[in-house]
Amino acid sequence: MSNREGNVLVAQGGGPTAVINQSLAGVVLEARRQPGVRRVFGAVHGVRGIVGEQLVDLTNVTARNLEEVGDTPSSALCSTRDKPDAAYCSRIFAALRAHEVGWFFYLGGNDSADTCRIVAEEAERASYPLRVCHVPKTIDNDLLVTDHCPGFGSAARFVAQAFAGANLDNRSLPGVYVAVVMGRHAGFLTAAAALARRYPDDGPHLVYVPERTFDREQFLADVKAVYSKHGRCIVAASEGIHDAAGNPIAAGFTGGEKDAHGNVQLSGTGAVGDYLAGLVKDGAGIKRVRADTLGYLQRSFLGCVSETDRAEAREVGEKGVHFCVGGDRSGSVVIRRLADYAVDYAFVDLAEVARKSRAMPDEFIAPAGNDVTDAFLRYARPLVGLLPLSARLSAPPVPKRLPPTN
Amino acid sequence: MSNREGNVLVAQGGGPTAVINQSLAGVVLEARRQPGVRRVFGAVHGVRGIVGEQLVDLTNVTARNLEEVGDTPSSALCSTRDKPDAAYCSRIFAALRAHEVGWFFYLGGNDSADTCRIVAEEAERASYPLRVCHVPKTIDNDLLVTDHCPGFGSAARFVAQAFAGANLDNRSLPGVYVAVVMGRHAGFLTAAAALARRYPDDGPHLVYVPERTFDREQFLADVKAVYSKHGRCIVAASEGIHDAAGNPIAAGFTGGEKDAHGNVQLSGTGAVGDYLAGLVKDGAGIKRVRADTLGYLQRSFLGCVSETDRAEAREVGEKGVHFCVGGDRSGSVVIRRLADYAVDYAFVDLAEVARKSRAMPDEFIAPAGNDVTDAFLRYARPLVGLLPLSARLSAPPVPKRLPPTN
Repeated sequence: MSNREGNVLVAQGGGPTAVINQSLAGVVLEARRQPGVRRVFGAVHGVRGIVGEQLVDLTNVTARNLEEVGDTPSSALCSTRDKPDAAYCSRIFAALRAHEVGWFFYLGGNDSADTCRIVAEEAERASYPLRVCHVPKTIDNDLLVTDHCPGFGSAARFVAQAFAGANLDNRSLPGVYVAVVMGRHAGFLTAAAALARRYPDDGPHLVYVPERTFDREQFLADVKAVYSKHGRCIVAASEGIHDAAGNPIAAGFTGGEKDAHGNVQLSGTGAVGDYLAGLVKDGAGIKRVRADTLGYLQRSFLGCVSETDRAEAREVGEKGVHFCVGGDRSGSVVIRRLADYAVDYAFVDLAEVARKSRAMPDEFIAPAGNDVTDAFLRYARPLVGLLPLSARLSAPPVPKRLPPTN
Repeated sequence: MSNREGNVLVAQGGGPTAVINQSLAGVVLEARRQPGVRRVFGAVHGVRGIVGEQLVDLTNVTARNLEEVGDTPSSALCSTRDKPDAAYCSRIFAALRAHEVGWFFYLGGNDSADTCRIVAEEAERASYPLRVCHVPKTIDNDLLVTDHCPGFGSAARFVAQAFAGANLDNRSLPGVYVAVVMGRHAGFLTAAAALARRYPDDGPHLVYVPERTFDREQFLADVKAVYSKHGRCIVAASEGIHDAAGNPIAAGFTGGEKDAHGNVQLSGTGAVGDYLAGLVKDGAGIKRVRADTLGYLQRSFLGCVSETDRAEAREVGEKGVHFCVGGDRSGSVVIRRLADYAVDYAFVDLAEVARKSRAMPDEFIAPAGNDVTDAFLRYARPLVGLLPLSARLSAPPVPKRLPPTN
């Protein structure tokens, strides 16, 4: 424990998750218990709210309000897509200094970790006593070092429940059903669709992740094979599927809109799903083909949370305070998997997590590139928790009595 | 109570709901308790399974299996889109007679009620002692006579939870968000999006139902007005919105695929949402515009059920048996609203429910045609139940300290 005194500032960046406010509650409640902490501020709309001094005082927010906010999806402090460069980070640092911030907590993905890294370096150069803590969150599950990311388990649970229902619907009224799942470069969330299977012929029957090249002809052959076997077919496809040259399938449809990182916009449109459905209609001669795009529901639907994810999101916030304030260090909180299933938390250098991202490891993807492996299911199941029950009737057939027609 | 003896046959038709198997469980469990009932059969894939004699014997299905199936969304006996004409109904009747069916229960919407009506008439003409019971279900909530339809409450709950989450997401990362909701001619389900509002500036800010003509210019003006007031805008639009001539907006995009009723296919594509998003981008000059189509999730998502809906779906099945077997009558089960909130059940002639459908009454639609009224919210709230909590931080602003930058 250091003898420093100062204020804490917490902000949220990037896309929301269902449990990101649990991390916020964890940071605020735990920071308020630390001896050197005078006040706890929150920045509205992430780093943009820091440079614009849109701050709120969380020091005396009631515990009940924090608990209720913790159970509410999507960044309660509001978020931003701004990706700060060095000049932007200087402005962040100036604002932190002006508000006597001794500890800065930023809840976000790998870009947020990079912002943390740059701000921490700037403070060090200025000999200003600042500690910076990156608190991980992302539904994409693509951060380095950590076993998994808070936010993924709940989004994966939503995806699994969506496909479980779609499978029941498709079994009732057979045809081909395609649903497109978020995840530009990492297929973890798309792969979670496979957690929905219970009976041997349950869908999704085909799973396409962005870690593999998407081949139209192979896709059509795959769909035809499943359809001729089961009389129906359910496909889970990542929004990030791309051709052999790496061009996203989505690139042709979304009007070329790009985000601050220069990436083609993938979400917020049904174009990829409609394209895949069109391929099947035209190329496989199957009439009843439907496509859904899970869209923003998968990251912010109210009322679908993994209890494991919820608890861990709270703990990464709490542990961040222990490591950063108590331990007087800058870093990023990571989750380590111990037993089946238990975790603990560690604190690693910001540079280990900043900017870079990870994709699905090969052992999670079936050799044919159109499914996941049992290793993935074992990895993901504890993060998602037990799914709601779904059952089929267990009833014997009744012998026919009518004369055969024709 | 009649002295007749015979078998019961139950089937499910049309689009699935989250609670349609509660009605199935109600029919089967209650039918098995009736003195005159020898066996309880189920037809696989609705009327198609009757004429094809794809029957299963539900007489000795365990209560546990029925309870688990009851809690599983989507027709456990599987469904069909077949809409029987007179010849088809003759084949249904022949199969019922061959299997000594004395009571036929068909779970479905207004088309299923019409099938029930024709089959009952045919039996009467043939002096065959058959009683036919229509057990209502539809997420569209568009059946006549009944106060509301089993299946609607759970689908409405899904829609409300989806918009509640989308509103939180959109507040965190502002822009225009459009989501398209099922309901070809009836706007009840789209209107349910409004149940998501809690704070005065919560979305959806605009609600477009198929009971009103959709005017592009008015839509753009509406979106601009909301956006300039709140800096963001959430739109709920029915898939069935149409121009002044009655042409569905969707008609231009879905390749003209039509169902057995001659209707243009509306669901299973993101085209309407993408079209509306394009209108806003081009016509209102707003950059961040996203569209989702709630798609099949709203009728079959695993794990989103209204407890009221669940209980009533069970009861319409049970009461159907009492009215039809116990009361020795053909008819359709309807729900009557008594107090705020309590219901009872009645049995009306099949002709009162068959074929026809109802739209949202005028008093549920705001005069401007872009929102719902409090009367609708009062009508729908008990059907959907209490929504999961969502809360905002209640924290005071921190005074600025930096010199203004201009």
